[in-house]
Amino acid sequence: MSTQATTGRLIGVGTGPGDPELLTLKAVRALAEADVVAHFAKRRSNGNARAIVEGHIRPGTAELPLHYPVTIEIDKDHADYKAQILAFYEESAAQVAEHLAAGRTVAVLSEGDPLFYGSYMHLHVRLAHRFPTEVIPGVTAMSGCWSATGEPIVQGDDVLTVLPGTMGEAELARRLADTDAAVIMKVGRNLPKIRRALAASNRLEKAIYVERGTMANGASMRLAEKPDDDAPYFSIILVAGWENRPGERASGVVV
Amino acid sequence: MSTQATTGRLIGVGTGPGDPELLTLKAVRALAEADVVAHFAKRRSNGNARAIVEGHIRPGTAELPLHYPVTIEIDKDHADYKAQILAFYEESAAQVAEHLAAGRTVAVLSEGDPLFYGSYMHLHVRLAHRFPTEVIPGVTAMSGCWSATGEPIVQGDDVLTVLPGTMGEAELARRLADTDAAVIMKVGRNLPKIRRALAASNRLEKAIYVERGTMANGASMRLAEKPDDDAPYFSIILVAGWENRPGERASGVVV
Ligand SMILES: C[S@@+](CC[C@H](N)C(=O)[O-])C[C@H]1O[C@@H](n2cnc3c(N)ncnc32)[C@H](O)[C@@H]1O
Ligand SMILES: C[S@@+](CC[C@H](N)C(=O)[O-])C[C@H]1O[C@@H](n2cnc3c(N)ncnc32)[C@H](O)[C@@H]1O
Repeated sequence: MSTQATTGRLIGVGTGPGDPELLTLKAVRALAEADVVAHFAKRRSNGNARAIVEGHIRPGTAELPLHYPVTIEIDKDHADYKAQILAFYEESAAQVAEHLAAGRTVAVLSEGDPLFYGSYMHLHVRLAHRFPTEVIPGVTAMSGCWSATGEPIVQGDDVLTVLPGTMGEAELARRLADTDAAVIMKVGRNLPKIRRALAASNRLEKAIYVERGTMANGASMRLAEKPDDDAPYFSIILVAGWENRPGERASGVVV
Repeated sequence: MSTQATTGRLIGVGTGPGDPELLTLKAVRALAEADVVAHFAKRRSNGNARAIVEGHIRPGTAELPLHYPVTIEIDKDHADYKAQILAFYEESAAQVAEHLAAGRTVAVLSEGDPLFYGSYMHLHVRLAHRFPTEVIPGVTAMSGCWSATGEPIVQGDDVLTVLPGTMGEAELARRLADTDAAVIMKVGRNLPKIRRALAASNRLEKAIYVERGTMANGASMRLAEKPDDDAPYFSIILVAGWENRPGERASGVVV
């Protein structure tokens, strides 16, 4: 290293959906080269991205865990929540910026793909215009899940709609009725509402429920056959398109 | 190897969008272990997936290129096209099945993610119910493209709609007007129509054009600033969501 401090690089590193073998060669290299590895730690998914990359971090690499404030337990639409979470992102960005300004390369872990509903984005929009930045794409949770279940999701002229399970029930049903294929993210406690929206749009029969896709304890089943509404944070719903595909149904669902 | 022939495994291998470093560790292992590596070779994208994995195929591995018939030059909706392409997929599946029945593991390359508009799907639906099958997800073209341009595509409650540029203009415009974020695949010669649909839905200003994302000769620009309608097979349009994101525009578009 030279004695003159140059600016470090910000790297958003997609870790893929859970299986550590779904890391890309580029992510592995970025982790090996990073001076600092940062990750967000969420309630109920504590350290998952960090667990995925275990074994790829050089001994001696500095680590920067960014812990969400406990107050995210309160209602998402409450003004206190918004203020606290914004303050948390500002503070996190400031901590990362300090490392970057000191010439250190900071790799920020992001489950799946960083710019696809990822927490990394909150750092990206605050720092990418100030520091050299690179984003390393990752395998998304949805790709991991439809591959694990062998579900051909879209082909030819199919439209795919990706819906957050957090949205309103009527809107969810309307959009489910108006697409060839759908993925519903952020299932968790939204499952009862999602079930109703799928039934209202006549898609319940086709819906596949996947939890912890590509992880060691992953599971999947037809949603219609799932007896309860318990769903962990890492769960997703798939509705495959390609209606007129030839041959038999490709594969059984792996439970 | 035992003298008793056991059935081989079919493996759909996602190669990612172009940058060979975006291969996953799992894809690299599958290529090293395969007895046969098969790939579809398309008009105008001849051997791209094969080029991505160059350097990861064991010397002595058998290769099975599956060449699309020249007749795909004729109109897609023409009955002759449909008959010939179906015959081609049947014949390709039969060739792969022969290797599997003889106990050989066949890795079928697929650009991006195999079950996301990939040609591999035509083998999957014909063979996955007959032979042990595994699908290794890959980084999609869209993830590669929004990462290359640093475009935060969706956050929070955003809806993402993935649209094939092959669909009708009015339908394209309607769906573009009814989503937070959009990705338009299969741009190529559909670009003039796509431009009109983006203008009609008031999304032209936000649209980013990316060609050969993550490849050595990749390029991107605001579509509104692209002076011509020339687009290669490997091109995509991104319309980012996250309207109320904080801070400045994250990053300039890399041209
Ligand atoms: C904040 S989003 C992050 C998405 C991620 N950046 C991606 O590229 O897929 C979190 C949601 O992704 C989904 N998810 C992430 N990993 C998953 C997995 N392994 N199995 C099932 N769903 C998963 C769940 O729906 C979860 O609520
Ligand atoms: C048949 S689809 C295959 C999609 C692929 N399976 C995936 O996961 O993204 C082909 C389309 O993907 C898009 N595409 C693939 N690679 C690309 C790249 N490197 N840059 C831009 N677009 C790409 C183009 O729109 C192209 O028409």
